[in-house]
Amino acid sequence: MSISTAITELLRISHPILLAPMDMVSDARLTAAVIAAGGLGILGGGYGDEQWLVRELGLLEQAKSRYGVGFITWSMAKNPRLLDIALEHKPAAVMLSFGNPKPFADRIKRTGAILVCQVQSLALAKEAAESGADILVAQGAEAGGHGMSRGLFTLVPEIVDALGSTLPIVAAGGIADGRGLAAAFMLGASGALMGTRFYATQESAALQAAKERVLAATGDDTLRSIVFDISRRNIWPAPFTGRCLRNIHLDRWFGREIELLRHQEEASKYAEARREGNFDIAAVIAGEAIGLVQDLPSAGDVVQKVMRDASALLSNGALQVDSRSSL
Amino acid sequence: MSISTAITELLRISHPILLAPMDMVSDARLTAAVIAAGGLGILGGGYGDEQWLVRELGLLEQAKSRYGVGFITWSMAKNPRLLDIALEHKPAAVMLSFGNPKPFADRIKRTGAILVCQVQSLALAKEAAESGADILVAQGAEAGGHGMSRGLFTLVPEIVDALGSTLPIVAAGGIADGRGLAAAFMLGASGALMGTRFYATQESAALQAAKERVLAATGDDTLRSIVFDISRRNIWPAPFTGRCLRNIHLDRWFGREIELLRHQEEASKYAEARREGNFDIAAVIAGEAIGLVQDLPSAGDVVQKVMRDASALLSNGALQVDSRSSL
Ligand SMILES: Cc1cc2nc3c(=O)[nH]c(=O)nc-3n(C[C@H](O)[C@H](O)[C@H](O)COP(=O)(O)O)c2cc1C
Ligand SMILES: Cc1cc2nc3c(=O)[nH]c(=O)nc-3n(C[C@H](O)[C@H](O)[C@H](O)COP(=O)(O)O)c2cc1C
Repeated sequence: MSISTAITELLRISHPILLAPMDMVSDARLTAAVIAAGGLGILGGGYGDEQWLVRELGLLEQAKSRYGVGFITWSMAKNPRLLDIALEHKPAAVMLSFGNPKPFADRIKRTGAILVCQVQSLALAKEAAESGADILVAQGAEAGGHGMSRGLFTLVPEIVDALGSTLPIVAAGGIADGRGLAAAFMLGASGALMGTRFYATQESAALQAAKERVLAATGDDTLRSIVFDISRRNIWPAPFTGRCLRNIHLDRWFGREIELLRHQEEASKYAEARREGNFDIAAVIAGEAIGLVQDLPSAGDVVQKVMRDASALLSNGALQVDSRSSL
Repeated sequence: MSISTAITELLRISHPILLAPMDMVSDARLTAAVIAAGGLGILGGGYGDEQWLVRELGLLEQAKSRYGVGFITWSMAKNPRLLDIALEHKPAAVMLSFGNPKPFADRIKRTGAILVCQVQSLALAKEAAESGADILVAQGAEAGGHGMSRGLFTLVPEIVDALGSTLPIVAAGGIADGRGLAAAFMLGASGALMGTRFYATQESAALQAAKERVLAATGDDTLRSIVFDISRRNIWPAPFTGRCLRNIHLDRWFGREIELLRHQEEASKYAEARREGNFDIAAVIAGEAIGLVQDLPSAGDVVQKVMRDASALLSNGALQVDSRSSL
């Protein structure tokens, strides 16, 4: 079965599923795996390590596939050369998140790339649409990684009402199975972008110990905070916060962020924990969807299962409605 | 058209729609209107004004309809006589939110009432199920009024996976139209409980000026905080916060709650604003769904429209799936 939407047509993909450009986790291997399964893979350009970017773009080019590249806008803006490098490789799509896309929109669209903008509120959605976005990703607070406070359940239909007649809306945040994709369709979305679900796959570049924490935890076990950004001295602009798994470090400092800023030694302890893969201290970045993630399949199996389950739900939906009685 | 689910059967209602027991806003009039439209009306017992409760229960009894009564558990626990008064009227259902239902479960169920428990996390869902709940309402952070931090998009399917084989799950928070109800079904819920949408109806006991603020605002314009609880000296147990519309007072004190606690004169200013209906200072309690609410219909029209739109979406869902191609 297949489901065709505005997204599958615009992006020329078989399934309305996008891989989130997770900083370094969505490398060429994971990106290629999602593409091979019929979705859109988006390379996680993140904060922009130039060497990494050149290497991963090279790998994708060899595969001769249509792929996307994602950037954290405010970070890339400090070194726009990264965008130039990506554009030289002629990606099918460029995704910008967290910052005004306006200064980069023309440059991206002139190369023929489709501009995907991730937004967290109605106001940001309007800004991105005015800046020239071709597709909006509405990201709810459930999402892993950075984001804001609005829940996906109201964000999607409200953005659809305001802008859905001019461009397609993709839902992101808390979607990990066919139920989530089917629900996103009901709210008016044309597809889903998934991070956490793809994090816990065979091909994901995340460390095995981090993946295992994702499998073991429930959806109650994540928090949105700035604790890990302070700890790694990676200060984000307000009002963004990052969702990650609770661990000893987060429980210790949550609500005491100002105090944490003063503790210089915590930054070195944190850096060491990251090097060692000590996830009692280092953050596992993941969303509430971890409560729906219990296995470590291949990315291709994820795409297939999400599509199969969503298709079944959408086909059976009609059966629930008894059309004999009148309303 | 009608949609029958585990909820419509258990509660003996025509439509899987529940009125949230909004403190004083869901009075006998609004409750009766939702019942007349085929949903379950739940009287908003709230913090328990005994005189009000007796009067509204009397009005409902005259209407000879099957209704529910809702309480804020931790508040009712300070004066359980309120529960006794309600039970003497033999309500069809009692809904408990915000606190351990265990001490009251047996007493409620012995009268034949169905016990509905509103929960905000997987852990609380398990606690309520073990305490004897017949129905769980999974409340997402999008909701108006008090709640916690988990988004509805992951909370519903995770609770369904854990407990859905033993009791039905209703979704609450951010649902205001047929899209929301259809999405809730896709996530595995058997129905929806709505507060904010019914707040903005003809029959709702909310003040006209408050309703008009709801119509004018977007979903970006609410915040979850404890500012209004501090202002009215109504201190809730952690970790509950209340979602209401941003206004001058909330913008002034958000993030400065400890300081607000020290300002005695703010409490009297706030009490005066409530008496005067000055909503620059007094809170309009409402959820993110305000962005989907643009009119002031009757409660019956809300139920009809939600059902009609959800039914259409569920019937058309099948059309999106192209079953010729294979997955
Ligand atoms: C480990 C991880 C890293 C992420 N890194 C980025 C990033 O570098 N750039 C970005 O735009 N979004 C990033 N995100 C957010 C995703 O784009 C997306 O919004 C989110 O994963 C969707 O929610 P979900 O995790 O529930 O699927 C990241 C998410 C995760 C889980
Ligand atoms: C004005 C208002 C008052 C509320 N008062 C109560 C209450 O007294 N008891 C309760 O259990 N829930 C109360 N709630 C929360 C509702 O039970 C419900 O979870 C919420 O309205 C669902 O989200 P929605 O507002 O987006 O529909 C209230 C909600 C609103 C909007």
